[in-house]
Amino acid sequence: MIYNDFFSHCLQRKKTFLCIGIDPDVDKLPEKFTCDLNGLAEFCREIIQATAEFTVAYKFNLAFFERWGWRGWQVLENLITAVPADVLTIADAKRGDIGNSSRFYTQAFFKMLPFHAITLSPYLGPDSITPFIEDADHGAFVLCVTSNFGGRIIQEHGDSQPVYLKVAEMVESLNKNRNLGLVMGATKPEQLTEVRQKFPTLPFLIPGIGAQGGEVEQAVAVCRSAGQGLINVSRAILFPTSGAFPANVREMAAYYQQQFKIQEEQ
Amino acid sequence: MIYNDFFSHCLQRKKTFLCIGIDPDVDKLPEKFTCDLNGLAEFCREIIQATAEFTVAYKFNLAFFERWGWRGWQVLENLITAVPADVLTIADAKRGDIGNSSRFYTQAFFKMLPFHAITLSPYLGPDSITPFIEDADHGAFVLCVTSNFGGRIIQEHGDSQPVYLKVAEMVESLNKNRNLGLVMGATKPEQLTEVRQKFPTLPFLIPGIGAQGGEVEQAVAVCRSAGQGLINVSRAILFPTSGAFPANVREMAAYYQQQFKIQEEQ
Repeated sequence: MIYNDFFSHCLQRKKTFLCIGIDPDVDKLPEKFTCDLNGLAEFCREIIQATAEFTVAYKFNLAFFERWGWRGWQVLENLITAVPADVLTIADAKRGDIGNSSRFYTQAFFKMLPFHAITLSPYLGPDSITPFIEDADHGAFVLCVTSNFGGRIIQEHGDSQPVYLKVAEMVESLNKNRNLGLVMGATKPEQLTEVRQKFPTLPFLIPGIGAQGGEVEQAVAVCRSAGQGLINVSRAILFPTSGAFPANVREMAAYYQQQFKIQEEQ
Repeated sequence: MIYNDFFSHCLQRKKTFLCIGIDPDVDKLPEKFTCDLNGLAEFCREIIQATAEFTVAYKFNLAFFERWGWRGWQVLENLITAVPADVLTIADAKRGDIGNSSRFYTQAFFKMLPFHAITLSPYLGPDSITPFIEDADHGAFVLCVTSNFGGRIIQEHGDSQPVYLKVAEMVESLNKNRNLGLVMGATKPEQLTEVRQKFPTLPFLIPGIGAQGGEVEQAVAVCRSAGQGLINVSRAILFPTSGAFPANVREMAAYYQQQFKIQEEQ
């Protein structure tokens, strides 16, 4: 199925921009789970069961799986098959390499691990991105403005045009299959609005809400104006500060689904 | 052992700047190997046996292992333990994520996979790099100028100062443990010389020689001027165009060891 059609279908079905970030930190698991890879796998499986009806997408952060070596990759492979067919899956892998290597990464993330989409770094330019988007059945989000403090050092560099606008320009020019978007941190509200104004139709994947302190209203506004987009919440849903698991997780997912709903109440 | 001391020790022992890139493409294996992951694992093991005496370092390209999913990671874990103790190992993983995730990546690449060093992307700035270099026992090389054609789009962006110089400046300022260096493609000789002049002591990891057509003399010159560095050769050593395996691989490794020797003949 064409990625862009599937993405629209998922958005319309759930009527929200919610994306849940699977960043499973084993040190934060509820008591009933063991503090090891088995506990982590069980926890993720229950998270998916509890939240799938509320979310458009799951974004799996590779760091939290690779820290367990090949066994973490194995768990991830099993988890993806546990995601219901009407939910988009994104590998938050931030890959970026020369074309030859990028081609092998497409096999890693679109075949061995059957993700719908992936996050990419823009540093190596167009030929590092095109292998992931040649096939319209898959998509990618390229890092543009990131939610961390140090991101500005490289991303805001440049006199007449900061790097992040150059990245957005490059991504727009590559988006022939309408399967490419930008990662835009919610912690940088001015840049979020600026890039939306200059590139009104590019899909945004917006991290940084919740634990990272980004602004909800602005994130929702830039998605609504484009009629699409994803707003990611990880820790605030996976590890609620009160309530009993998994009811508390379910409650948080329902809360954010409402917060990020596609249209305002009539 | 302190990474920088170990690096110097390896260079002095082999008297060369040679780094061999393990980019094992299963479609190019000699006939005696099966075209699957077992064949690939056997091939890599024989490559290491045939070439370890000539090389300072092995740079393992993660793309060629991840394309096999978790089984590829498992093979990589086994291969690293097959590398002799006097050879540096580099994970060519090009990771780069916010600090929290970067910390988990250090566990993936310095513990689960016991590499000495890793390659990183600069796009997320200082807080994405520091977790990898806080411990002086490990090191990292940050992408600065890459060997591919499209790299220039982002890397040469900027009016008064191109991005690649900003990256080099950032890396130099972070290099308190002397365990950080730059990836500088040999296919961009002018930038190679420029960055060397502006940052005379930063270690360079130089890919792009051989199949990619970069200039040998200049790469050797910039390493000699700093008294250190690594020049990577992958395909030209792994897949020689003539001769019988593994004697031909051994011959090519010996050839490049000589080409990249630390000092000129007296």
